Amino acid sequence: MAKLLRINTKTNEFKFEDLNEEMSLLGGRALTSKIIRKEVPATCHPLGPSNKLVVATGILSGTPLANSGRISVGGKSPLTGGIKEANSGGTFSQKMAKLGIRGIVLEDKPEKKDSPKIIYLNKDGVQIENMPELANLGTYETCEKLFAKYGKKVGILVIGPAGENLRLAASIQFTDPKGRPARAAGRGGLGAVMGSKGIKAIVVDDTDAPGIKLKDPEAFKEAAKRWAEILRGHAVTGQGLPSFGTAILINIINEAGALPTKNFRSGRFEKAAEVSGEKMAELIQKRGGVVKEGCHPGCIIQCSQAYVDENGEYITSGFEYETIWAMGPNTLIDNLDDLAQLDRLCDDLGLDTIETGNTIAVAMEGGVIPWGDGKAAQELLKRVYDPKDYLGRIIANGAAFTGEALGVDRVPVVKRQALPAYDPRAVKGVGVTYATTPMGADHTAGYAVCQNILKVGGDIDPLKKEGNIEVSKNLQIATAAIDSTGFCLFVAFAVLDTDDALETMAKLLSARTGKNISVDDIVNLGISVLKDEYAFNKEAGFTKSKDQLPEFFSKEPLPPHNTIWDFTIDELQAAKVE
Amino acid sequence: MAKLLRINTKTNEFKFEDLNEEMSLLGGRALTSKIIRKEVPATCHPLGPSNKLVVATGILSGTPLANSGRISVGGKSPLTGGIKEANSGGTFSQKMAKLGIRGIVLEDKPEKKDSPKIIYLNKDGVQIENMPELANLGTYETCEKLFAKYGKKVGILVIGPAGENLRLAASIQFTDPKGRPARAAGRGGLGAVMGSKGIKAIVVDDTDAPGIKLKDPEAFKEAAKRWAEILRGHAVTGQGLPSFGTAILINIINEAGALPTKNFRSGRFEKAAEVSGEKMAELIQKRGGVVKEGCHPGCIIQCSQAYVDENGEYITSGFEYETIWAMGPNTLIDNLDDLAQLDRLCDDLGLDTIETGNTIAVAMEGGVIPWGDGKAAQELLKRVYDPKDYLGRIIANGAAFTGEALGVDRVPVVKRQALPAYDPRAVKGVGVTYATTPMGADHTAGYAVCQNILKVGGDIDPLKKEGNIEVSKNLQIATAAIDSTGFCLFVAFAVLDTDDALETMAKLLSARTGKNISVDDIVNLGISVLKDEYAFNKEAGFTKSKDQLPEFFSKEPLPPHNTIWDFTIDELQAAKVE
Repeated sequence: MAKLLRINTKTNEFKFEDLNEEMSLLGGRALTSKIIRKEVPATCHPLGPSNKLVVATGILSGTPLANSGRISVGGKSPLTGGIKEANSGGTFSQKMAKLGIRGIVLEDKPEKKDSPKIIYLNKDGVQIENMPELANLGTYETCEKLFAKYGKKVGILVIGPAGENLRLAASIQFTDPKGRPARAAGRGGLGAVMGSKGIKAIVVDDTDAPGIKLKDPEAFKEAAKRWAEILRGHAVTGQGLPSFGTAILINIINEAGALPTKNFRSGRFEKAAEVSGEKMAELIQKRGGVVKEGCHPGCIIQCSQAYVDENGEYITSGFEYETIWAMGPNTLIDNLDDLAQLDRLCDDLGLDTIETGNTIAVAMEGGVIPWGDGKAAQELLKRVYDPKDYLGRIIANGAAFTGEALGVDRVPVVKRQALPAYDPRAVKGVGVTYATTPMGADHTAGYAVCQNILKVGGDIDPLKKEGNIEVSKNLQIATAAIDSTGFCLFVAFAVLDTDDALETMAKLLSARTGKNISVDDIVNLGISVLKDEYAFNKEAGFTKSKDQLPEFFSKEPLPPHNTIWDFTIDELQAAKVE
Repeated sequence: MAKLLRINTKTNEFKFEDLNEEMSLLGGRALTSKIIRKEVPATCHPLGPSNKLVVATGILSGTPLANSGRISVGGKSPLTGGIKEANSGGTFSQKMAKLGIRGIVLEDKPEKKDSPKIIYLNKDGVQIENMPELANLGTYETCEKLFAKYGKKVGILVIGPAGENLRLAASIQFTDPKGRPARAAGRGGLGAVMGSKGIKAIVVDDTDAPGIKLKDPEAFKEAAKRWAEILRGHAVTGQGLPSFGTAILINIINEAGALPTKNFRSGRFEKAAEVSGEKMAELIQKRGGVVKEGCHPGCIIQCSQAYVDENGEYITSGFEYETIWAMGPNTLIDNLDDLAQLDRLCDDLGLDTIETGNTIAVAMEGGVIPWGDGKAAQELLKRVYDPKDYLGRIIANGAAFTGEALGVDRVPVVKRQALPAYDPRAVKGVGVTYATTPMGADHTAGYAVCQNILKVGGDIDPLKKEGNIEVSKNLQIATAAIDSTGFCLFVAFAVLDTDDALETMAKLLSARTGKNISVDDIVNLGISVLKDEYAFNKEAGFTKSKDQLPEFFSKEPLPPHNTIWDFTIDELQAAKVE
């Protein structure tokens, strides 16, 4: 039976609980949001003792199924003040699932800031140790020390200096199959929640782990085979992402006039080709890096890479479209090597790249560093290593906070979380998602870029209002369900375009759990997750007034299409499943 | 007929409007809140072009009536995100009223930060001038230059570097009869709203002004005489405040066990006597300062003073209980001279002293400077003069922001505004006001210290819940009315204890306006002001979840009474007049 591991971070006490029948069907985001909704007072201080940090594997994680190794982290967000789930790849989820642990709940907090603590999990149980030598170390060096201590095969969940110092843009990083902490549950500052609890890392060792017991192994195997075919058969998951990574989108979104440039002043970046996925693949190939690799065993999409410098030395991986955009077109930095260094810095500091790229643009807006200066941006981020550097403290608190610190009022945030890489004036479906998801501005919560631009799963005009509320709402429901399975969200490209994909997903869930799970059940799961999340946010004090983009999107037309954001708050309410 | 002066700060255009009959009966807070409610989109950015800054005289201001010279400033608060009115003494209100101007509305904002502008008002109209030489100057030096240019008799409304640099704790300062910018509309960051509009100061010159035309001069004169008797006849307004200033409260509140000490850890400060009003009066007398003086002509309470150093040199005036507490017991600084320097720094920088004292305590909590170190606190505040000093920028954004910057989660704020000088666990009536007023934590919005501690206007146990909701609600209504008249709030001590006081107030308003204004009308005015304010906040996204004190007040008993804050959010709703 799937277990929940509760750890009191004040007393170091822990206990394993069996999940009851209802809860045992929940994984990933469904489980994190359920626990947060039930156990965390919505009005509590996100960095106080009443908040909890929940780490949950998907229901399908730990099985050999393709692309099922995502891990969810949840809590009350110190950035948005609302509920938050952020998910990541890496090896952690599968190893944790194989130990029979569906969720880890970090509770309470130490009375005083003390030595960083490490939680080590293996088949024999739990060890909690002080490791003062890790204080304020970057995630890369931390992981080196942890691999040296615990062996190369463990999976690691880790925070950097940003999380330790309770910065609002702090991420939680996860190691990939090569041991690099380059995968991130980035958004919403959950790294700071972990930091408030004094935990530097969780190390999971699945040596001789019992593994997952499938209820119907034969049915599972058959459905898993079909699942792999579906993913391999789609142009995006089978060809586009493996060839150029997510950065393939740079040219596509730029062409669509929706690539936010210079803090959302234009939808076209004249140097887009310089930072495109095509350019990245070319450089990596020339320099002897790795063009495609997966973030966890069993991934057949392989959208990651090892980006190397001119000497072939590794800089970063998981170098995503969103990161490149946030650090690049949005700040006018047009050199991929600079962007790779910025990505590496964020991973090492434990900072969300989307939030941080937007923050750099706000800092440029405020005159702290010049537009387009990649070296200055790196120096700016390095200040975050020093907890006594107050500019560093500001920057690591994200775009809204930095705007308030600098007196900049043109700040692209919803619910204080910075916008991702699609201008909502030119991709209105994803704008609806930014405005209405309980997560704060988040493209992954309902990726209408599919229907608006990629023409996957439908064809809806990105520049008009028609149809975009509905598409966002349906995607938000579907995403909440997918985020609960352990599936990588990229499976959605194939799912949306393949007739039997949802049916196959239902078969997999049925064979895994022994319950008869239908496609309707999957949809209902998504709805129920969203209901939990909206209910939490309502109790935390969110009203519809927060379901809107900043004023400037409604006033400044976006070149080249010169469209504005024209949804009213009341119209937007229809995208919510409350 | 009373006029409204509208100034577009982007174009420098201005126009005078006659107030219509309904509006012409409104002054002070009633007028600022009405205009903000009607004209400012509740969800706008407080420092963006859609916010407005409204400066309004009370209805009775400009008459010879005792203690009627208060001025109100209103806008959407960048600190709380809600509606805000802050009021102040000084000579500005009477001079402005004598020019026939009831309200000044600053609209829009310059496209780029440019030279500071000065608005000069006299009987001939309005001049708007660039004065680049005033950029980033303290208010004292700014006023010296403005008096040199415009003559000694003008009244000045001015912001300091904090307001110019859009800091969230920025005040608006007003000159007193001796030309010192020591009077403050302190709370809620309205100085930043003024800064966003590029206005450094408004200078009002009432030479040969038409003055106020009373509708019934005889009736007014008679009621005014009775009014002065009432104020002189009460122990607080006639004796306590004139002898020791508001700092008379240090010993009283300490004795009551409600003087928040070391960031609200105790209700008693062992060094209270060192910073008491009695000690202050003794020092001033010994050094040759001025023990009592008024903040505007016609004040008969005379609670201000000129605090001087050992050489008899002026340091500060308007050196209030709240300031002394915030900078003193709350931070463990126990030297009056240090506190006077901190007050002077706040006045000169244009910073709210309550917010800033709390912020210093939060900075001590975060290890930035040691507890009780008055010199270090002064050095900390001096950093605010330098707009490139990031710690200075943090500090000047107030306690909540500083808590987020430093990772301190024990921060005494409601709606992001810092608590004043009465611990809500030991003065529960004022705690109800902190939690429920639309202003964010504010003692002046409903000063139940009267009934809880001073036993003026009633006797309600400060440590129990019984009766405290009702007393706060009634005081909030009465205060909203008084804040609209131009009366100093301290008249309330006498009003609460004198049978014919409200009747006298009604007579004064009737004789001033020519309308038959009853005591009920005054109450209804208060109710209608609050309704405007709550309606604005609701639209801005406030829900009842924000009507509560931080969690730690409900968890940590306060010595010496060891009481906790035990009102639930739902109980507190009864204190609102929505």
